[in-house]
Amino acid sequence: MELDVLENTFLLVLVTLLSVLQNVFFAQKVEQECKTHNARSFLRPGTPAFERVYCANRNCADAYPTFLAVFWCAGLCCSQAPAAFAGMMYLFVRQKYFVGYMGETSQSTPGYLFGKRIISFLFLMSMVGIFNYFLIEYYGSDYKDYIQTITKAASALLLIP
Amino acid sequence: MELDVLENTFLLVLVTLLSVLQNVFFAQKVEQECKTHNARSFLRPGTPAFERVYCANRNCADAYPTFLAVFWCAGLCCSQAPAAFAGMMYLFVRQKYFVGYMGETSQSTPGYLFGKRIISFLFLMSMVGIFNYFLIEYYGSDYKDYIQTITKAASALLLIP
Amino acid sequence: MELDVLENTFLLVLVTLLSVLQNVFFAQKVEQECKTHNARSFLRPGTPAFERVYCANRNCADAYPTFLAVFWCAGLCCSQAPAAFAGMMYLFVRQKYFVGYMGETSQSTPGYLFGKRIISFLFLMSMVGIFNYFLIEYYGSDYKDYIQTITKAASALLLIP
Repeated sequence: MELDVLENTFLLVLVTLLSVLQNVFFAQKVEQECKTHNARSFLRPGTPAFERVYCANRNCADAYPTFLAVFWCAGLCCSQAPAAFAGMMYLFVRQKYFVGYMGETSQSTPGYLFGKRIISFLFLMSMVGIFNYFLIEYYGSDYKDYIQTITKAASALLLIP
Repeated sequence: MELDVLENTFLLVLVTLLSVLQNVFFAQKVEQECKTHNARSFLRPGTPAFERVYCANRNCADAYPTFLAVFWCAGLCCSQAPAAFAGMMYLFVRQKYFVGYMGETSQSTPGYLFGKRIISFLFLMSMVGIFNYFLIEYYGSDYKDYIQTITKAASALLLIP
Repeated sequence: MELDVLENTFLLVLVTLLSVLQNVFFAQKVEQECKTHNARSFLRPGTPAFERVYCANRNCADAYPTFLAVFWCAGLCCSQAPAAFAGMMYLFVRQKYFVGYMGETSQSTPGYLFGKRIISFLFLMSMVGIFNYFLIEYYGSDYKDYIQTITKAASALLLIP
């Protein structure tokens, strides 16, 4: 791959690799719980602990392709640093969701969805990037620098709990 | 990202963003049904209505990475306009599948698979694009223009129910 | 898409298309088992045979986005031929896992995870590619040729069972 392409994507690649690590960590938790309860059976054990970790992994895996798609779109169409920052935040939120799901007591992370704000932010970034492309194409005016400054500032807002 | 790259992919990005929106819509339907029946429990409620919406979302989410992979391959290797059109058709079919799944009566959208024709079309487009690349590489003859015209015409066939 | 980009990715595209074919094959197995047992019901049939094939397909589909992400990262950041070879190995392992899961007797492919070695290899390739990028950027020394030779040799190690 050419160097200039890698220059614009290496942060995205790093966050993707981190998310892969996290996926493997989740899957190993499931594997471990599965091994604890029944060594050889192929069917799902029905214990509540297994159901919980399986369901947490399931919900995380459900949202993963959606996250990857919008994350790479935002990083490629708009700018990579804010997208990578939002991606890191998403991984933190996902970790918290998974741990909260496994705990018996229902903490602040219930439900089926999580990280809605981060996905919305990445979605908005992609839309702005595409919109800017149309502006360049049809009006010749490029607001890329403004947009990158604004998205960098706006990504800090994701830190607010 | 450079402008000429975005010029060849902006339709693909737009369809990807639309599919992300649809995914979020599906997930919110599940969330809503989940909230209706039990507010706090982590385990899956066993009502038929929830099972149905959960299963519909599950089947759609299962096919999503496959669709994304073949969609981007077709768009990048062959040409983007027919691929984006087929992607839009896929999103319509998926919406119809989801709605049909949630309805009590079994309409025209049963089963586990859907959009087979569209996936096959995208798959064929990718194969043709790769084949054309080999032709250029080893014979020096480029049929890209013919292929793009033919795929544009063929994509209209997807409209036939 | 420009030809020089396709030159660096056509093997990746081919393996991706093969994995899509395999996904469709798995999904059709589920569809078939589903049709055998109940023609019209939307809910999952509870027979052991269906549960087994459904679960095998589920576990394969769970790991698919993770595989795709790390596969493309490795292919783009490092070099495509070893990545494509590892991808092919992964498809073989997945096929064996699926068939082993459907068989009644518990053979050599139990558990929830599979292909750990291949995923780790692809992950390492991506890390090396990113690390090499930093070396080029900050020290000006390029080890790409050495890395590609080493990864090509190392990918042969994946053949050891």
